[in-house]
Amino acid sequence: MAAEDADRVSEAEEARAERLDEDDRLKPEFVEAVREALQEDAETDVRDLVEPLHPADIADLFEILPREDRPALARGIADLMSGEVISEMNDYVRDDLLESLPPDAVAGIAEQLETDDAVALIEDLDASDQAAVLAEMGPEDRAAIESALSFPEESAGRLMQRDLVAVPEHISIGDLIDYMRENADLTTEFWEVFVVDPTHRPVGSVQLSWILRTPRGVAIADVMKRDQTLIPADLDQEEVALRFQKYALISAAVVDKAGRLIGQITADDVAHIIQEEAGEDTLLLSGAGEGDINEPIRTSYSQRVRWLIANLGTALVASLIIAAFGAAIEQLVALAILMPVVASIGGNAGTQTMAVSVRALAMNQLTRSNTSRVIWREMRVALLNGITVAALIGAATAAIFTPMLGVVIAAAVVLNIITAGMAGVLVPVIFDRLDQDPAVASSVFVTIITDSMGFFAFLGLAVASGLVG
Amino acid sequence: MAAEDADRVSEAEEARAERLDEDDRLKPEFVEAVREALQEDAETDVRDLVEPLHPADIADLFEILPREDRPALARGIADLMSGEVISEMNDYVRDDLLESLPPDAVAGIAEQLETDDAVALIEDLDASDQAAVLAEMGPEDRAAIESALSFPEESAGRLMQRDLVAVPEHISIGDLIDYMRENADLTTEFWEVFVVDPTHRPVGSVQLSWILRTPRGVAIADVMKRDQTLIPADLDQEEVALRFQKYALISAAVVDKAGRLIGQITADDVAHIIQEEAGEDTLLLSGAGEGDINEPIRTSYSQRVRWLIANLGTALVASLIIAAFGAAIEQLVALAILMPVVASIGGNAGTQTMAVSVRALAMNQLTRSNTSRVIWREMRVALLNGITVAALIGAATAAIFTPMLGVVIAAAVVLNIITAGMAGVLVPVIFDRLDQDPAVASSVFVTIITDSMGFFAFLGLAVASGLVG
Repeated sequence: MAAEDADRVSEAEEARAERLDEDDRLKPEFVEAVREALQEDAETDVRDLVEPLHPADIADLFEILPREDRPALARGIADLMSGEVISEMNDYVRDDLLESLPPDAVAGIAEQLETDDAVALIEDLDASDQAAVLAEMGPEDRAAIESALSFPEESAGRLMQRDLVAVPEHISIGDLIDYMRENADLTTEFWEVFVVDPTHRPVGSVQLSWILRTPRGVAIADVMKRDQTLIPADLDQEEVALRFQKYALISAAVVDKAGRLIGQITADDVAHIIQEEAGEDTLLLSGAGEGDINEPIRTSYSQRVRWLIANLGTALVASLIIAAFGAAIEQLVALAILMPVVASIGGNAGTQTMAVSVRALAMNQLTRSNTSRVIWREMRVALLNGITVAALIGAATAAIFTPMLGVVIAAAVVLNIITAGMAGVLVPVIFDRLDQDPAVASSVFVTIITDSMGFFAFLGLAVASGLVG
Repeated sequence: MAAEDADRVSEAEEARAERLDEDDRLKPEFVEAVREALQEDAETDVRDLVEPLHPADIADLFEILPREDRPALARGIADLMSGEVISEMNDYVRDDLLESLPPDAVAGIAEQLETDDAVALIEDLDASDQAAVLAEMGPEDRAAIESALSFPEESAGRLMQRDLVAVPEHISIGDLIDYMRENADLTTEFWEVFVVDPTHRPVGSVQLSWILRTPRGVAIADVMKRDQTLIPADLDQEEVALRFQKYALISAAVVDKAGRLIGQITADDVAHIIQEEAGEDTLLLSGAGEGDINEPIRTSYSQRVRWLIANLGTALVASLIIAAFGAAIEQLVALAILMPVVASIGGNAGTQTMAVSVRALAMNQLTRSNTSRVIWREMRVALLNGITVAALIGAATAAIFTPMLGVVIAAAVVLNIITAGMAGVLVPVIFDRLDQDPAVASSVFVTIITDSMGFFAFLGLAVASGLVG
């Protein structure tokens, strides 16, 4: 028996190792084998290959395959296309695939999903497709989804599951266990039992391990935790993710405006959000919008080109500054050779400080209480960085060109790095105070400040020092 | 009774609203009140103010207060300094605070923590402090921590808790419940029961809701899920986080090299890791290292200055290219005025593509199977972006300077944006293939490529076109 089990475990591990590499990614050889089977229309082979995969890996397979192979795969493994596969799939890949299916097929898939996943599937369809799919669904599922869709996008109300276990305070552990055993249609996706008052407002929660470890006769009221984190249904998903992380939650009750329990959110659903929201800043700061490799090319184009055009604007401001010093450059071409150095170093220093500030704001670490301390901190870091870099570039310039030009570029670099440090904190903080996402537009403003300051300080000091005149 | 409950709930909500703003951050007025009480040495006031806070909020309070106020706060609320407060605190703030405490006090704190949090507390101390603290601890806790410290930093072995519930396959649900009720020293922090064979290798798992909903007589073997995600103890925490997210896990078994169950990791511990790892790329790409607003200034300085110096190197390469065209610039100063535009646009386009690629690599979406497809995709986006931006800058230049200069700058911009798109994918992918973190050094290489290409294409085309000679 034990030997058999061990064999079973190692067989599963071996099967896994055939398909996934050490980083848990599908191996290219495996993907190639599926593609070949698809191209030969060998549906049985396709199914045999894919069947041992976890639903999340099947979803990955769809994403990795070229677009034109995906519908054939979906047909080939129709019986494996579970709700889990669909809900794990990248939004763009899923929407593209769903568009090729009739509404009743989409409704059939949506009905197997939990509310939150069904909502995720339906919310991106256009209004007429949405209506067609909803019309095909059973009345109960339809009502649940319509009610979820009434909450704002990316809110707790869209994320939550409506299925949960809620009981009154006066019952005993034994009653609770009997209730759960006898009601076959209760969800199994729950990690805590919520205790509610007669008006259905949460008064406490009990994690399942406590229920299992407590004698049957004890009252729920005596083991429940009264202090719990409640999630308002209209809270933004980014805040939901922060609360789960901050208070180390496994699940949490979602309440409506009157404070009544209307759903629950579990940590497995939040993991995606944390990843998305934390990773989003990288993309937003770069000006790449949502930056998904599966998004249609026209979306990538329109997201990115607007920031390139904004960047063109900032670059032209820099050009105007340079143009004002055209005569100086004609007189001393070394200025043209060195000026991009000053701007580039400032831009880099600004980006560093800005990235740190944007992260600290996103994690609620940089608040009104410590803003001035953080600015002072960044000023000191900037001063140290400025002196180091200025010494290097100043010495090199003095050696190659003239000592005076070395002094000028060193002073310009110090000035620009300090300006960059100031702008790198202040710009994101100001956006945050204005209730704007600091990751979205901070880059453009920090760049325009460091570019302008870089060219102005260097060329201006060159003129002021009498180096050119 | 119901009315009382409702009052209790709303009282708690009101108390919360006094201290926290709508984004769940401590209000500046509250922080200021604590500071004033600290400065007046009013320890009772301090305690009264802080006592209603959740441990995670107490940890936030330490982070937000200036460094010099923190030891006084720790003394004032000594009885509230639970393991949870300590483990929620920012690493730098915690280490700084711990350094001011004697080893036996640190050992006392470590003993109340779960293994994973105790390890996090001790691993950053220097070797002699670590030894002193371990010497003060009980033998069992010491053994657990020493064994955890034997795993590599940032591995599953350091993250895991050793406390878990593991049972053999042959027992019934009733036996299991009795076992859990009778063993008072079992952990309560578990969400699944692991089923093991006689050699202690995991053969399945049962989530607690299944146990609660199944009649006592049923065998564990009949309700357990055989297919579970096992985490090797030496797996990097980033991969652990990806598996939790990909397979929507609430908890997972950690196994040693022989496949034996040695610990568990739960979703609440992983939430931090997901946030850290996903946010890390923003900081790494900017060259800000770990970029924490609480890290000592000398750490920020040494992390950032190295990238500024690297950036200085890349900027000097660009200067060399400009210097090669010194004569052309002397002849036509418009070249100096416009050349930063071409470099800047290319840098921006490269950063966009790089951010998208780095995220896709981190999320295992960009693999060997689809690299060529993604490159081809980015080339098409780059072509669209290039044509749009080139048309704008070309027309403006033609109007202000000469039509020929407009053609030259337009061609240079298209060339540079396409180069940027290529570099933005290839540089991170090459680092990934070489098993290097693509977020760390990609920026420097992409910048040097887009800067060089920007100046070379624009100045080179100006000469080649006969604009200057």
